[in-house]
Amino acid sequence: MEGEHIAEVVTRIVFQLALVLVAAKLAGEVFERYLHITPVLGELATGILIGPYALGGMLLVGFGPVFPIPEHALANPVSAIPLELYVIAQIASIVLLFSAGLETDLRQFLRYSGPALVVAIGGVALPFALGASATVALGFAPSLSSPLALFMGAILTATSVGITARVLSDLGSIASPEGVTIIGAAVVDDVLVILVLSVIIAFTATGEVSLGQLGLVAAKAVGFWVVLTGLVILTSKWVSRFLLGLRVAGAALVLTLALALVGAGLAETFGLAMIIGAYSVGLGLSGTPLRRMIEERLEGVYNFLVPVFFVAMGMLVDVTRLGDVIVFGGVLTLLAVVGKVVGAGAPAMAVGFNRRGAWRIGLGMLPRGEVGLIVAGVGLARGVINQQEFGVAVMVVLVTTVLATILLVPAFRSGLPGTRKTSNV
Amino acid sequence: MEGEHIAEVVTRIVFQLALVLVAAKLAGEVFERYLHITPVLGELATGILIGPYALGGMLLVGFGPVFPIPEHALANPVSAIPLELYVIAQIASIVLLFSAGLETDLRQFLRYSGPALVVAIGGVALPFALGASATVALGFAPSLSSPLALFMGAILTATSVGITARVLSDLGSIASPEGVTIIGAAVVDDVLVILVLSVIIAFTATGEVSLGQLGLVAAKAVGFWVVLTGLVILTSKWVSRFLLGLRVAGAALVLTLALALVGAGLAETFGLAMIIGAYSVGLGLSGTPLRRMIEERLEGVYNFLVPVFFVAMGMLVDVTRLGDVIVFGGVLTLLAVVGKVVGAGAPAMAVGFNRRGAWRIGLGMLPRGEVGLIVAGVGLARGVINQQEFGVAVMVVLVTTVLATILLVPAFRSGLPGTRKTSNV
Repeated sequence: MEGEHIAEVVTRIVFQLALVLVAAKLAGEVFERYLHITPVLGELATGILIGPYALGGMLLVGFGPVFPIPEHALANPVSAIPLELYVIAQIASIVLLFSAGLETDLRQFLRYSGPALVVAIGGVALPFALGASATVALGFAPSLSSPLALFMGAILTATSVGITARVLSDLGSIASPEGVTIIGAAVVDDVLVILVLSVIIAFTATGEVSLGQLGLVAAKAVGFWVVLTGLVILTSKWVSRFLLGLRVAGAALVLTLALALVGAGLAETFGLAMIIGAYSVGLGLSGTPLRRMIEERLEGVYNFLVPVFFVAMGMLVDVTRLGDVIVFGGVLTLLAVVGKVVGAGAPAMAVGFNRRGAWRIGLGMLPRGEVGLIVAGVGLARGVINQQEFGVAVMVVLVTTVLATILLVPAFRSGLPGTRKTSNV
Repeated sequence: MEGEHIAEVVTRIVFQLALVLVAAKLAGEVFERYLHITPVLGELATGILIGPYALGGMLLVGFGPVFPIPEHALANPVSAIPLELYVIAQIASIVLLFSAGLETDLRQFLRYSGPALVVAIGGVALPFALGASATVALGFAPSLSSPLALFMGAILTATSVGITARVLSDLGSIASPEGVTIIGAAVVDDVLVILVLSVIIAFTATGEVSLGQLGLVAAKAVGFWVVLTGLVILTSKWVSRFLLGLRVAGAALVLTLALALVGAGLAETFGLAMIIGAYSVGLGLSGTPLRRMIEERLEGVYNFLVPVFFVAMGMLVDVTRLGDVIVFGGVLTLLAVVGKVVGAGAPAMAVGFNRRGAWRIGLGMLPRGEVGLIVAGVGLARGVINQQEFGVAVMVVLVTTVLATILLVPAFRSGLPGTRKTSNV
């Protein structure tokens, strides 16, 4: 009976979701408490472990595998996990990026925009160039303008504001000149990555085209982003007042999340990535009283949904075939480190930091975290990168994030100034 | 390309979810602010309105319908809404019932159990008998032991603790003898309905059987419920201490929700309804410090998910064919009112209330709310009741809930005592 079938689907999802949540939180606990590494990496690692390509795909005694690999997983990598779980993970990524936008604080963003902008541009340009070039040089992509080369470059450009802010806050260095510059640059980096991603997605949809057409595509992507963000900022006071005036329980939170969903859906409809729209809506509302009102309740939704995204991303990594791309992965990881340390460090020295300060800033920009993962996930869903290349991206995210959290502590511990005497920071 | 197809599915769900959330909260606001009726009914009503059988099924200019009716909706009514939305609604019903169990407060539950138990049993037995009999008498079911008759009876037995508590709290009468008895009885009623539902589900799975076999089935259902609730209560102190000792953000909330999901999945696996397991887990944890810790953050998850359940239930009502069952609906609604007012009121008079008090208690037990809806939804998913009979259940829920919220105000306004001088309440 078809009705029974739906009940079975629901039961399966309920058990799978419970497993994902338990694995995510226990792994996060182990990473945070014993390894002193961000719990996000615990969620990612546990996803690899319980996924269809490791424990999840093995037969349990008396049961089938918890996460069997469907037959069409090769042709369509994201179908390696159940569609319902993938949908929940996508909604989670919308909540994640909406939340990142909401926490951005437009004013602070504009205040520290000077040095931060220079550092961010260097920290985006060099890794992008290195990543795209290496992809071509190693024979994975035919030319620099091929979608795969562009995506691998874009993955290297990411900086995770969340992870960096967390580590700096633990070190008590978030208000230092380096700290402020890192956070500012990481935020600018977020925006730049999202713009780069928009352009690449629009570009890959039309195929390889001329420089003039690329300009048009870029204008469309940037235009959509600017118009959506601008519209939300312009109407944000009115939206905030209207939503805060509602009486029914949770209306402000739920309707704000609905706005984020609409922004995400519109972005996808215009040929961009959903998270771009979600980030725009969050950024646009970040300066309103609504933000403070919903932050606490949003935390519950965030805690419940976002681990599903990280575990799901881990589950998509085909560890059984990772050996084939270990060289590619190693090279890209190395370039990811060099690209950020030099790409962000050199401009930092130009704007008044000494070598120590530039090293700190370069390290602070290192962790790719969720941003790199999201870019890679978009590439995977669109069939631009395959599961092995996705595994490479996950390797880059894991190594850079672990390295940054380990190296930042001694870099800041000396307490010596990171700026030159004639500093203009 | 298959990958593109998944992106389309995700985009569709994102827009549909946004529409459901916006419609739910705006309708809830109108119901609460202007009609002074519980927002839950606004969500239900808006679900009917935007569903596939009303506005949602109509063609938009330039687009297809937002909620097209799939071809197999006749054979399998719950597939009238997208599977992903149905899955989210089911997870929402788990959160809803888990939350109801968590708020129950085992101690208060046991303290007022005397008169409340008598009132609850009367308020369950009479509506059940009337509902099942009417279903047979009107020719919808062949005999009293047929699954449909049992389900329609079970739908009438429900009492919504949430709605009643809300109205009594607005009237400032929640601590009156009637108030305490109503809340106590509504809680007992929850448990009884869940037991009745367990028995019926187990029963309908095996078909029409002898009284002896029915006893076995009942023992199995009650046994599972008692064992699960008992296990959670026995381990609750340890679980609470362990979860509160975790450091990673949101671990306590997320792992408790995972427990609720596991309880729900186990219940379904044992042939009961998922919500039974979710309620057990909540009830078992209701006396722990964990409860206070997670309540606030649970609110965000609750506000985000639960409206999806009510809107989805509304969307499943086929208004176009409701005319055929209008007489059945009218009769059942009438019996739902009489059954509760007499069934709960008469025992109330026996334990020391006067007529005024008995009337208040009968009215307080009237609203079926979410409990009736969940029972009906389970019947629909299992193919025991069809879409027209589901529509009847929604009619009963709507009318009894509206009636109770309207009539309770004048009933309590006089302020005259509702107990006899020789009261033993």
